[in-house]
Amino acid sequence: MSRLLESWTQGRWYAASDEGTPLLSAVDGSEVARISATGVDRAAMVEYARTVGGEALASLTFHERAGLLKQLGLTLMAGKDEFYELSRTTGATDRDSAVDIDGGFGTVLSYASKARRELPDDTVYLDGPVEQLGKKGTFLGQHLYTSRRGVAVQINAFNFPVWGFLEKLAPAFIAGVPTIVKPASATAYLTELVVRRIVESGILPEGSVQLLCGSAGDLLDHLDGQDSVAFTGSADTAAVLRAHPTVVASGLHFTAEADSLNASILGADVGVDDPEFDLYVRQLVTEMTVKAGQKCTAIRRALVPEPLVDAVVEAASARLATIRVGNPAAPDVRMGALASIEQRDEVLKALRGLTKSADIVFGDPDHVELVDAERSSGAFLSPILLRATDSWAPEIHDIEAFGPVSTVIGYRDADDAIALAARGRGSLVASLVTADTDVAATVVRGIAAYHGRILVLNAEDAAESTGHGSPLPVLVHGGPGRAGGGEELGGIRGVLHHMQRTAVQGTPNILTAVGRRWVGGADRVQTDVHPFRKNLSQLQIGDTIVGGPRQVTRADIDHFAEFTGDTFYAHTDPEAAAANPLFGGIVAHGYLVVSLAAGLFVDPAPGPVLANFGVDGLRFLTPVKAEDSLTVTLTAKQITPRQSADYGEVRWDAVVTNQNDDPVATYDVLTLVAKAEKE
Amino acid sequence: MSRLLESWTQGRWYAASDEGTPLLSAVDGSEVARISATGVDRAAMVEYARTVGGEALASLTFHERAGLLKQLGLTLMAGKDEFYELSRTTGATDRDSAVDIDGGFGTVLSYASKARRELPDDTVYLDGPVEQLGKKGTFLGQHLYTSRRGVAVQINAFNFPVWGFLEKLAPAFIAGVPTIVKPASATAYLTELVVRRIVESGILPEGSVQLLCGSAGDLLDHLDGQDSVAFTGSADTAAVLRAHPTVVASGLHFTAEADSLNASILGADVGVDDPEFDLYVRQLVTEMTVKAGQKCTAIRRALVPEPLVDAVVEAASARLATIRVGNPAAPDVRMGALASIEQRDEVLKALRGLTKSADIVFGDPDHVELVDAERSSGAFLSPILLRATDSWAPEIHDIEAFGPVSTVIGYRDADDAIALAARGRGSLVASLVTADTDVAATVVRGIAAYHGRILVLNAEDAAESTGHGSPLPVLVHGGPGRAGGGEELGGIRGVLHHMQRTAVQGTPNILTAVGRRWVGGADRVQTDVHPFRKNLSQLQIGDTIVGGPRQVTRADIDHFAEFTGDTFYAHTDPEAAAANPLFGGIVAHGYLVVSLAAGLFVDPAPGPVLANFGVDGLRFLTPVKAEDSLTVTLTAKQITPRQSADYGEVRWDAVVTNQNDDPVATYDVLTLVAKAEKE
Repeated sequence: MSRLLESWTQGRWYAASDEGTPLLSAVDGSEVARISATGVDRAAMVEYARTVGGEALASLTFHERAGLLKQLGLTLMAGKDEFYELSRTTGATDRDSAVDIDGGFGTVLSYASKARRELPDDTVYLDGPVEQLGKKGTFLGQHLYTSRRGVAVQINAFNFPVWGFLEKLAPAFIAGVPTIVKPASATAYLTELVVRRIVESGILPEGSVQLLCGSAGDLLDHLDGQDSVAFTGSADTAAVLRAHPTVVASGLHFTAEADSLNASILGADVGVDDPEFDLYVRQLVTEMTVKAGQKCTAIRRALVPEPLVDAVVEAASARLATIRVGNPAAPDVRMGALASIEQRDEVLKALRGLTKSADIVFGDPDHVELVDAERSSGAFLSPILLRATDSWAPEIHDIEAFGPVSTVIGYRDADDAIALAARGRGSLVASLVTADTDVAATVVRGIAAYHGRILVLNAEDAAESTGHGSPLPVLVHGGPGRAGGGEELGGIRGVLHHMQRTAVQGTPNILTAVGRRWVGGADRVQTDVHPFRKNLSQLQIGDTIVGGPRQVTRADIDHFAEFTGDTFYAHTDPEAAAANPLFGGIVAHGYLVVSLAAGLFVDPAPGPVLANFGVDGLRFLTPVKAEDSLTVTLTAKQITPRQSADYGEVRWDAVVTNQNDDPVATYDVLTLVAKAEKE
Repeated sequence: MSRLLESWTQGRWYAASDEGTPLLSAVDGSEVARISATGVDRAAMVEYARTVGGEALASLTFHERAGLLKQLGLTLMAGKDEFYELSRTTGATDRDSAVDIDGGFGTVLSYASKARRELPDDTVYLDGPVEQLGKKGTFLGQHLYTSRRGVAVQINAFNFPVWGFLEKLAPAFIAGVPTIVKPASATAYLTELVVRRIVESGILPEGSVQLLCGSAGDLLDHLDGQDSVAFTGSADTAAVLRAHPTVVASGLHFTAEADSLNASILGADVGVDDPEFDLYVRQLVTEMTVKAGQKCTAIRRALVPEPLVDAVVEAASARLATIRVGNPAAPDVRMGALASIEQRDEVLKALRGLTKSADIVFGDPDHVELVDAERSSGAFLSPILLRATDSWAPEIHDIEAFGPVSTVIGYRDADDAIALAARGRGSLVASLVTADTDVAATVVRGIAAYHGRILVLNAEDAAESTGHGSPLPVLVHGGPGRAGGGEELGGIRGVLHHMQRTAVQGTPNILTAVGRRWVGGADRVQTDVHPFRKNLSQLQIGDTIVGGPRQVTRADIDHFAEFTGDTFYAHTDPEAAAANPLFGGIVAHGYLVVSLAAGLFVDPAPGPVLANFGVDGLRFLTPVKAEDSLTVTLTAKQITPRQSADYGEVRWDAVVTNQNDDPVATYDVLTLVAKAEKE
């Protein structure tokens, strides 16, 4: 008897007391493992995640969590060979496994990198600018995100046993939310192996990840409004889960990423001899055969200008004929097996529905030539290309055959293509193959509301394109309507899905204390020590230097114009400047103002400030005329130490005022500051 | 018999054929109107919204929609007297009505203003920066938002018949999504009157707003994944709607804003003689009595340090004793009636639950002294203050008495207060009254995950504070868990809730065409005409001027240091500069680089460019050394005409490179450019 998969719950591996259900190899039907969750205390898992896991994560900043994820990603990547080997049992070729395994670890690393670059070294993320709520500036609003105090439950699909759980784990982990992974049974053995290696690595804090191998059972009953459920799978199961009493009553965050009838549109500008024609056909065949078409993002509907339908069918069929199907371990096999015989039966059933309004033009549902494998014991199926007999028939836009199956559908014009794409009632992704920017603008704007992602492919980006079917960690994944209405990934967007956005109202000092970013109007602290002489650990938010006044003379303006070559009439020609509706006379250059301001706040000698690496949000508010006097006030606004360097970033609030205290220019100055003073 | 309310469907007023249900005055029980939706074709309403309304809105830009909203807000505001008069029938005093009526019209105007300032003059909104997806820069990603092709269905509560529908209508309208308003019956007559005036004004496009007076009937059956349902009301009804087959199966966007057990926390730093003590008590009494406590955001739980519970009960009771209850039309009445006798019965029932773990310390559920009214015919109730006998008892954190009812609950320390606030299982709002920034940081960060909004009140912001109970158009409204898990308002955030976010992948030229914002790597167009000589209608995205090269000499750097006073050692001291880890020698000032760049791209003579009003995202990438040669490339990136001025904003992409083509500085230059050339 094969090994019983275990669940990782409450800090230990748990084996069910019963024998469990056998899981069979997709390739030869042999028993790979057994699965059972009998006796798992799911309520205790939820409680453990919230307390042990939640508290451990809450004590780490975004950057610290990112550091752990990076370590984890590198460790997993280094030991990936065993995952590839086991992955073949799921029917996957090595090329298929790369999407799942390298794709999963790459997503972990991408989140580690994004979090350090785009999030503060804190546990709270500030959203948008401060809103002034009263005229005097004593009452302001600031939106911020804080981590939910719950658990992120994943209910995953069988097709990506590695990527599928890591693409959900990584953003939740960065957000500080512990995860319970519930893999689909068919391929749970691969998920279990990766989780086992994660546990052994000891990198992630106790309680931040648990694994439930087997039935979800009463798991959802124990959730509440701080928890989330992210489901990937069929639209039918998504509907069942959405109607679960806890989902309905608790206000928990439910997202679904469901199969969808993704379209690939061949632009009307493309002719059969254009490189885009070939790109279109190649991509169609790739999407049909990678993972044996078992991807939520695969192309199900090939929308082609009516005059080119024959050509596309012919070219795609020719290409499909070169695809060798069989044992994924065999070197020249391009397409492996479906995940199980049951899955193949599902596909064949869907095919019977599709053939009501489409003819099979390539492949035989009942026969396929195999390399080193038997159709009777393995879940093999020929790629099947169909051709719609009626472009508007409901079946071809509604029935998803979750396997190597696509339908070619003719369209007349761009409006037609847009309307046909929308017939999918919401998809994860569409692609458009075109070299014409007008076609791209029309079609993308026309179909965007129905799609989570749109790939525009042509000869210019083909070499770098990651393809129709590949979600990327930095781009959102998910689609409206039929595709589940959810959204995952998208860089930091995916992290924020696990956090609560809250509007905080209060005084500038209150918002500064809460958000740890200095807010205009809050206290400024001036001491004898120039803040540029303080290293990162000495510097405090609110530390301020006031420089000036310095008078700007007409001679300064003339000189600056001559020196820089910026002889714009508003700086040089009194008569023309007087006619300018905004200035009414000679004004100083904006760049002169900020240059002089730097001269007023600089501290010349070597010290902890290493460089000014940028300026954000510079706005010139009041024109500066000759004889005006400038004063600059520079205040430490935000301090971000870098975990992996001996310096960090300091953002300074700069305000330049004139002799009437009118603000002349406001901006943020960005500097690199050493953590400790060097001698 | 009173008038039968009509529904505004498919461009006409529809009166049901039956007599309908009588709606009674909250003040004296007289019949105000009757309501029935019998015979309304709800499927046709949905279809009409999607086609006539959706198409009309799709043809307008954000700025054009904003222009219409502004006109509408001003028109409604000018005629508000009749709304105030009718509002009294709902039990509202004029102060109550201000929140509903002025609050509603103010929200419309706020959205008009925000949309013009923060959205482009387009129908598509770009989200976040371009993501480079390949090393060579031919394959990029850009997220964008497009309008959903559906209808926004509102199902509203009785307590804010005006604000309640306008706060949902305004963001949907800006987003280009048509609305169907379904008011609560009890106060639908006021909603109907406002919609009537909206229709009469003729300002909004046909089909963009419809009104369904009476039962929702089969309305939801006709919705799909492009539609949304925004519900405001009880948590129980929210759960029923969430389980509706269409909501479960279609992937439509469902949001709920439900009653919640909002807390107001008195900071542990506050003593009875501090101004914050008085602010706390005043706010508590205000929230209990405005709208007779019928606000989803009212304070239900007053969390007070244990030693101050007596003092708070005493001070609040004294203040409550001064509140005159009665006919809202009477001049000295501070609190009117509940919306109906049924609502009062609900409150009394909830009170019986609360008194299991709290004692009534002010008010009598069965008796109240009234001004110009009778308790027998009107829905009047005394304010009721309770004091918890056990701070952790479930009833006081769970049962909402939707009326002038609050419970004072003692807490021991900050952790205790945070845990008690979380016992509400998610609230719309909490307030914290404190003068201590540390208390504010601890408590706000501790409770934020359970709240959509947190007000921190103290003596410094009290004069400008808009109060615990007031959602503001620029801040998000909604709360997690028990509060419904939804989010509305929040300025542009509320608009984006009606739009689909899509990741678009393609070449720089494709993304430029789709997003109408120039993307780095896209074509640059250089002609004989300097782009600064083109007015707004002549200028094209991609128009480019290249200036330079100009050599930077050591003399230039020395001179700039002396002239500006910016004598930072990296510009002046060769030895110290050589020791700087980033520079390794004397470098030119960043401000010198951008000043020289301006001299290279400027066109001196008067022309359409009126001013450079700012710079965004300036980053210094490569140090500039003496003898380096600088070239600047300036490209028109985004063009935003202002609807109400004879100029608009042009954002230019600026790249300064050195003699090796390394980028030295990148930034956006912001200019004002005239629509037509002046002579």
